[in-house]
Amino acid sequence: MNVIIMAGGAGTRFWPLSRLHRPKQFLTIYGSHPMIEETYLRIAPLAGEGEIYIIVNEDHRELTEEIFQGKRIRIVTEPLGRNTAPCIGLGLIHIMEEHGDGPVVVLPADHHIGDVAAFQETIRRAVSLVKKGGIATLGIVPTGPETGYGYIKGGKPLAGAGEALRADSFVEKPSLERATRFLSEEGYYWNAGIFVFQAQAMMAEIKRCLPELYEGLIDVQKSLGTEDYQERLRAVYEKLTPLSIDHGVMEKTGADVFVIPGHFPWSDVGNWRSLFELRSHERDTEGNMIDGDAVVIDCKNTMVHSRSGRLTGCIGLEDIFIIDTPDALLICHHGCAQDVRRCVELIKERGLDDLL
Amino acid sequence: MNVIIMAGGAGTRFWPLSRLHRPKQFLTIYGSHPMIEETYLRIAPLAGEGEIYIIVNEDHRELTEEIFQGKRIRIVTEPLGRNTAPCIGLGLIHIMEEHGDGPVVVLPADHHIGDVAAFQETIRRAVSLVKKGGIATLGIVPTGPETGYGYIKGGKPLAGAGEALRADSFVEKPSLERATRFLSEEGYYWNAGIFVFQAQAMMAEIKRCLPELYEGLIDVQKSLGTEDYQERLRAVYEKLTPLSIDHGVMEKTGADVFVIPGHFPWSDVGNWRSLFELRSHERDTEGNMIDGDAVVIDCKNTMVHSRSGRLTGCIGLEDIFIIDTPDALLICHHGCAQDVRRCVELIKERGLDDLL
Repeated sequence: MNVIIMAGGAGTRFWPLSRLHRPKQFLTIYGSHPMIEETYLRIAPLAGEGEIYIIVNEDHRELTEEIFQGKRIRIVTEPLGRNTAPCIGLGLIHIMEEHGDGPVVVLPADHHIGDVAAFQETIRRAVSLVKKGGIATLGIVPTGPETGYGYIKGGKPLAGAGEALRADSFVEKPSLERATRFLSEEGYYWNAGIFVFQAQAMMAEIKRCLPELYEGLIDVQKSLGTEDYQERLRAVYEKLTPLSIDHGVMEKTGADVFVIPGHFPWSDVGNWRSLFELRSHERDTEGNMIDGDAVVIDCKNTMVHSRSGRLTGCIGLEDIFIIDTPDALLICHHGCAQDVRRCVELIKERGLDDLL
Repeated sequence: MNVIIMAGGAGTRFWPLSRLHRPKQFLTIYGSHPMIEETYLRIAPLAGEGEIYIIVNEDHRELTEEIFQGKRIRIVTEPLGRNTAPCIGLGLIHIMEEHGDGPVVVLPADHHIGDVAAFQETIRRAVSLVKKGGIATLGIVPTGPETGYGYIKGGKPLAGAGEALRADSFVEKPSLERATRFLSEEGYYWNAGIFVFQAQAMMAEIKRCLPELYEGLIDVQKSLGTEDYQERLRAVYEKLTPLSIDHGVMEKTGADVFVIPGHFPWSDVGNWRSLFELRSHERDTEGNMIDGDAVVIDCKNTMVHSRSGRLTGCIGLEDIFIIDTPDALLICHHGCAQDVRRCVELIKERGLDDLL
């Protein structure tokens, strides 16, 4: 089996820690390695003779080489970010050129998984399930009425395939009301963005659902191993519309789509609030989490993440994130964690490129 | 007339801007000069042939010399801070040695006064009033139920002395309930810490009310102009108990005490909240006040005061102060502005002397 690790994200919701030159997946946000390396370490034992393809923006090739020094990986660079459908397609033409058809596991580089053994077991089942065709997704059993995740609605069970179900539909991020209903009804799972399929099967679906992307990929494939490759790749990417595999393929495909329930702690670590919740066991009795040098007086649920070497005094705060770096400081209410992206947009508008 | 400007305060409630080596009165917190210089500029035109004595901690002599370069002032240093009674006494023995008896105006170095002409006129009246004895205080006409100030209760009017009243009593910082009552009743004034008297009259009151301080001062006076002066001064100061002129003299004195209503904007600029209120005209439509480089999204009544050269992103905040300096950062809720002092105490306990 081969693996595609998608590491092309911008990670703007983790500003000011996450920057253009080192986005979230290259940071050690949780655990002891950069997220991309945690993802690699989690899947590497399963890859066997297969290869792990890491798809990164070309700006991050060196950073990736540095992190994976001495490890057997393949780095494939994208000239531009075009979301997950082109990213997976690009990974696939490399895999098929070098390994032909076979099972492929697609993983986002910047998620957290709490129980590696359970994760690996679920992946094994998925690989086995798709041998005869179809696309398997991992569906995380919800632990709360989460409005920040997409959902997969599971349908009929598959005979002789454990807990695996047919996937009835993909559901966009729901309202709190809907998310609460999903939690009480059975059969709704968080879409973890993990897909497993045979390479040829996915290429066939891309051809059917996204013919323009398919043509572009074939164009690129023809230039593989030639001097024209990078130029061709850029020309194709520049013309592509950004599109997720969910919208582009999963919601339209005529192929069998399966969902395999994953019984392991999972988080997309999507923003500072997700991280705060993920690390809740590290909070003190007042709910504060201090990572750096701080004096804290009468605060509740306040997180200090300081990388500036400066002392932070916090007095009378509640539900506040403080992220301190040498050249930029963020102070954000918990309820506004998604708006960090807006902050980054404003910084871009102001032309403060050094801070992006 | 001679002037004593009391500039020995620690200003800890303005941490992290105010530091041991440059406390509040040496900072340009409001206006265009350091507070101590603003105080000087406000009184200098009235001093005439008299002199302005600036009483500072000996650690701040150089800083004071720097600020007042080329100006006709006298710097008197204290080896330790012992509150206002010793400070005024020390100023007085210098004044009496050099000028004999005469009117003296005592001013805190770190207050804000909005209408300089009205202030000067009030001082002139006070100087004239005390020529025949007694101690005059300036009482600010309250504009709100302030719980952070001491009050003076005015009594019977003085015949032929304009608005001047006998001062009935000095009232400690009141509860909100009391402060609200003071506002509706007539005759309560904010104690601005400004005193006017004849030098000899105050010395007599110190002798009567604070005999130990008086003896110490006489001891120091004898060494004036000798090599022993500094050593003697330190020996005396080390034995003194810190005591305010309000507690030590004003509340006990048998002399006539007058209060002259001051009809000018005044603030003790006691903490970040006072400053925020003082500068309310600088706030935007959402009540935010940004002094430095910041991106502000969905915030209300938030103040950013940045001196670190870094960008501050603020998202979803309400009633928060953010004070950013190169080596320390403060984030404080409006309601906790007084607790900045506690923060400084904790920093001291932790031995982080560089940050004090």
